[in-house]
Amino acid sequence: MPDPAGDGLDAYELGENRYGKSRIRLVTVRRSATRHDLRDLTVAVALEGDFDAAHTRGDNAGVIATDTMKNTVYAFAKDRLTGAPELFGLELARHFVGYDVCRKAVIDIAEHRWLRVPTDSGPAPDAFTRAGDLTRITRVEVEKAGAVAVEAGVDDLTVMKTTKSAFVGFDRDEYTTLPEVDDRLMATKMRVTWGYAPERIAGGALDYDATWDGTRAALRNSFAEHFSASVQASIWIMARAMMDAEPSIDWVRMVLPNLHHWLVDLSKFGLDNPGEVFVSTTEPHGLIDATVHRRSAG
Amino acid sequence: MPDPAGDGLDAYELGENRYGKSRIRLVTVRRSATRHDLRDLTVAVALEGDFDAAHTRGDNAGVIATDTMKNTVYAFAKDRLTGAPELFGLELARHFVGYDVCRKAVIDIAEHRWLRVPTDSGPAPDAFTRAGDLTRITRVEVEKAGAVAVEAGVDDLTVMKTTKSAFVGFDRDEYTTLPEVDDRLMATKMRVTWGYAPERIAGGALDYDATWDGTRAALRNSFAEHFSASVQASIWIMARAMMDAEPSIDWVRMVLPNLHHWLVDLSKFGLDNPGEVFVSTTEPHGLIDATVHRRSAG
Amino acid sequence: MPDPAGDGLDAYELGENRYGKSRIRLVTVRRSATRHDLRDLTVAVALEGDFDAAHTRGDNAGVIATDTMKNTVYAFAKDRLTGAPELFGLELARHFVGYDVCRKAVIDIAEHRWLRVPTDSGPAPDAFTRAGDLTRITRVEVEKAGAVAVEAGVDDLTVMKTTKSAFVGFDRDEYTTLPEVDDRLMATKMRVTWGYAPERIAGGALDYDATWDGTRAALRNSFAEHFSASVQASIWIMARAMMDAEPSIDWVRMVLPNLHHWLVDLSKFGLDNPGEVFVSTTEPHGLIDATVHRRSAG
Amino acid sequence: MPDPAGDGLDAYELGENRYGKSRIRLVTVRRSATRHDLRDLTVAVALEGDFDAAHTRGDNAGVIATDTMKNTVYAFAKDRLTGAPELFGLELARHFVGYDVCRKAVIDIAEHRWLRVPTDSGPAPDAFTRAGDLTRITRVEVEKAGAVAVEAGVDDLTVMKTTKSAFVGFDRDEYTTLPEVDDRLMATKMRVTWGYAPERIAGGALDYDATWDGTRAALRNSFAEHFSASVQASIWIMARAMMDAEPSIDWVRMVLPNLHHWLVDLSKFGLDNPGEVFVSTTEPHGLIDATVHRRSAG
Repeated sequence: MPDPAGDGLDAYELGENRYGKSRIRLVTVRRSATRHDLRDLTVAVALEGDFDAAHTRGDNAGVIATDTMKNTVYAFAKDRLTGAPELFGLELARHFVGYDVCRKAVIDIAEHRWLRVPTDSGPAPDAFTRAGDLTRITRVEVEKAGAVAVEAGVDDLTVMKTTKSAFVGFDRDEYTTLPEVDDRLMATKMRVTWGYAPERIAGGALDYDATWDGTRAALRNSFAEHFSASVQASIWIMARAMMDAEPSIDWVRMVLPNLHHWLVDLSKFGLDNPGEVFVSTTEPHGLIDATVHRRSAG
Repeated sequence: MPDPAGDGLDAYELGENRYGKSRIRLVTVRRSATRHDLRDLTVAVALEGDFDAAHTRGDNAGVIATDTMKNTVYAFAKDRLTGAPELFGLELARHFVGYDVCRKAVIDIAEHRWLRVPTDSGPAPDAFTRAGDLTRITRVEVEKAGAVAVEAGVDDLTVMKTTKSAFVGFDRDEYTTLPEVDDRLMATKMRVTWGYAPERIAGGALDYDATWDGTRAALRNSFAEHFSASVQASIWIMARAMMDAEPSIDWVRMVLPNLHHWLVDLSKFGLDNPGEVFVSTTEPHGLIDATVHRRSAG
Repeated sequence: MPDPAGDGLDAYELGENRYGKSRIRLVTVRRSATRHDLRDLTVAVALEGDFDAAHTRGDNAGVIATDTMKNTVYAFAKDRLTGAPELFGLELARHFVGYDVCRKAVIDIAEHRWLRVPTDSGPAPDAFTRAGDLTRITRVEVEKAGAVAVEAGVDDLTVMKTTKSAFVGFDRDEYTTLPEVDDRLMATKMRVTWGYAPERIAGGALDYDATWDGTRAALRNSFAEHFSASVQASIWIMARAMMDAEPSIDWVRMVLPNLHHWLVDLSKFGLDNPGEVFVSTTEPHGLIDATVHRRSAG
Repeated sequence: MPDPAGDGLDAYELGENRYGKSRIRLVTVRRSATRHDLRDLTVAVALEGDFDAAHTRGDNAGVIATDTMKNTVYAFAKDRLTGAPELFGLELARHFVGYDVCRKAVIDIAEHRWLRVPTDSGPAPDAFTRAGDLTRITRVEVEKAGAVAVEAGVDDLTVMKTTKSAFVGFDRDEYTTLPEVDDRLMATKMRVTWGYAPERIAGGALDYDATWDGTRAALRNSFAEHFSASVQASIWIMARAMMDAEPSIDWVRMVLPNLHHWLVDLSKFGLDNPGEVFVSTTEPHGLIDATVHRRSAG
């Protein structure tokens, strides 16, 4: 039974905590005489700070309602969502650390791409189709004390290599039945994030859109071109390519499921199957999570 | 309690029934010296026929195991998945109606698009990214007696018009609170199917790929260009445009959710909002389902 | 290109169509001095009727806005959601066919169960936990001309038999590799619907709650007790048991995926596996769909 | 472009990394003469250690294939899945840290509940229904150096309080529009985890099943009985109750969405709505994440 007399602070203490609003769904349309521009974001706000009284005494005096956070996102979207999602995140985070009780604000944004509908007379000025194959993500963290961190990334990017992928020479023990293969399909649904160097963020001149484009191009190139000895080796190669391309990036993290495609045994039906027909599976899957850092110049 | 003595046929009778295998996940890679071609299908097989004994007497003698159906799909994929999914469906359906007990075979195929990864040296020959914004679907029905029906369509196509959409003049009663709007966002996730004229199918000269491309182009054009008085009116307009473009199509069916985007009231924050900031929602949603037929020439 | 001059009615005609509001999420709390009662429904409304003008001329005069349908559901929930979901569906359907243009109204309701939280002092009067293992569903169709149909059912009911299930004696051909098994796991996620006899509905004395309880009990009993020669045979047996138990039911339809559980070959690791360790899968799956009818007395 | 000559180690270094197999779906059936026992687990294995060569040199010599991990889980399930999931996790984790390269093994297990189907003659001995309303989870971490951590918890537990919940006295600023409410619905889908005191784990006498039952009962009781000034205050109260009940627990973490239920304004339809009819929503939602620690005795 909970302590009937008091707040329990003699026996318990509040540890790490944060709260906020998730799944704020926001669409904006900017209208000029000749064309519209459409943006589609899912925003989450999370705050850390001195929220002990709310927890231990039920005192909400310092609590910013999550409904207020939602309103703020929509209000800010009117005039301040004009550039990169990273910049919108910074505006929001700086606003929230302005509250007395708030020590740190974390803004997560997923921006969903829409493309102009192609028509016989060119891309439509005011009709769009949602591109389901890639989500641009960003996380901005601002501390009242001044520290600022900006991450960017891609999510939901499903890709496949139909060759230049092998898996040989791995450990074999009594539970190993997997044969070695020197040419396999490698498929994954990428979640790739990267962190910008603090001094670049502070400098204020970082072009987040251009950097994101360049990083994504490097990821694509290296995915297509490298030979993969394993998903682990692929991460090392692709992360380096991304940082080679974009000096403003300090580290790259990839969390990659290995979505196995199994060659079907057609010999039972009198057919050979030289790498042509596969079963696509989602579970179980391998899951490889690794971060690659740029060595500091020092 | 069930009748302990018999099969219950004195009191009950078997009505409509079909069975088969769903979610057969199939990837094929065709390899030439200079490039690979990737296809990704989800196939479902369903059979109708004289399966009474299986139901009422537990006699499986005439039952084609669903595992056999799956094997057949993979085996056929080796050499017969060389053209349009409609043709693969026809091959499969004709095979299954060859079983004595099978009166009708229904094959559903969803083909998921993959695009070549763009690289600095052009589209990759052997690396692909899954396009999540459109699925090509087909349903083929073949009866042992000879009738053949082929439907095609698109699924999972999320689109939005940012103008040229209104909703005015509707019925108003005591439960009506919706204001009339002469310029709104219209967003939907399209499932559109169409049926080919039987004589075109029988002729055998129908180019399913070209027809699908042409129909999709007409859908895109008309979606972008028409003025929508309602989702109902949009269906009528777009379906006609598709059949105008492709004479081989007899009918078009659209099942369109109306994914509401509500204008945010920013006046509370001292801001106007002339059609710029919206809340995107998924539930509740309108759902409009209508079929448009070509009038027969007779 | 669409006909620029007119409405297209010379060349095309409107076929089957219906529209409405889906995913209306509704929770009600009835409060007495000593306890609360909680209900949680998802409602969909669909109307059929003379909506040609809306489609072909963009004339919304006869269109009941789907927003109005939503409002009506919430307003009716205040005082008329007091008994079985079937009765609420009938109230709604009868209201909607009262509109001039509406020929038929179809109401689909899924009712999600919540249970009182068990506490040391008994079931909580005002705290609930959502039971995720069963959804009660109903479909009510009312025509202006008078016909009324009421279906009921269960959805999302995942069940497994660990014995008394076999699959032997099925057809074998060149694509058959499945071995016969005389003792297997049979798992499925049930969607079972049934239709009440029109004369019982018209009589007005049908106790939908009691009948639903009785039908579900018969389904449970027969699922647990019968020997299954196939999923098809199981449907025949269970459907009969349900209709034996509830004379007001005219037919039962079951759509049952066969969620395969494959025995793991542990012999490679020096272990036998006499029906103990299985891989649970969801795709591909068999899918069996059959309806059993009560023979008419005549 | 990636460094063509070498492994990039002059410029980059490998940071945090782990890999393993996820979504290993496992069902076991234990058979006695009179009844069967069914268990259903989803297992994930993740390993940390010296996997630098695999990443930076494509050298798989030390890599345990994720396929081997899967095989090991199934093989161990045969004879070692006989008690609490925590004990199975410990067996697996200890096995994996036995590999030379493996410094730490992390096992995540979700156990899905199945209940015996109730029949007229009592609970079925060999037929089961899956309970969808609660998942028991555990995470076991074992380090080669000896440290062992065991967490347990519940997931997917959707609950609602229909009274004894308020939200008043919160901060108000220019973006605040939420009214204060002294009696609201509070609904959440709980993910609650807790950590066992290391000395209790090391002692080996901890009864994980009994402790889990006791903790869950305390959670239920306190959820039903407490007055909630906010979700934050609820976490503090419920976490304390859980640790009061179970001395072996050192900390409790709750991640709770606030699934808003909005009172419908029925006054437009001439109806009052004194806390009876609500719209249930899932997005946006508040999200509260807090950990409560037991103060150390010292």
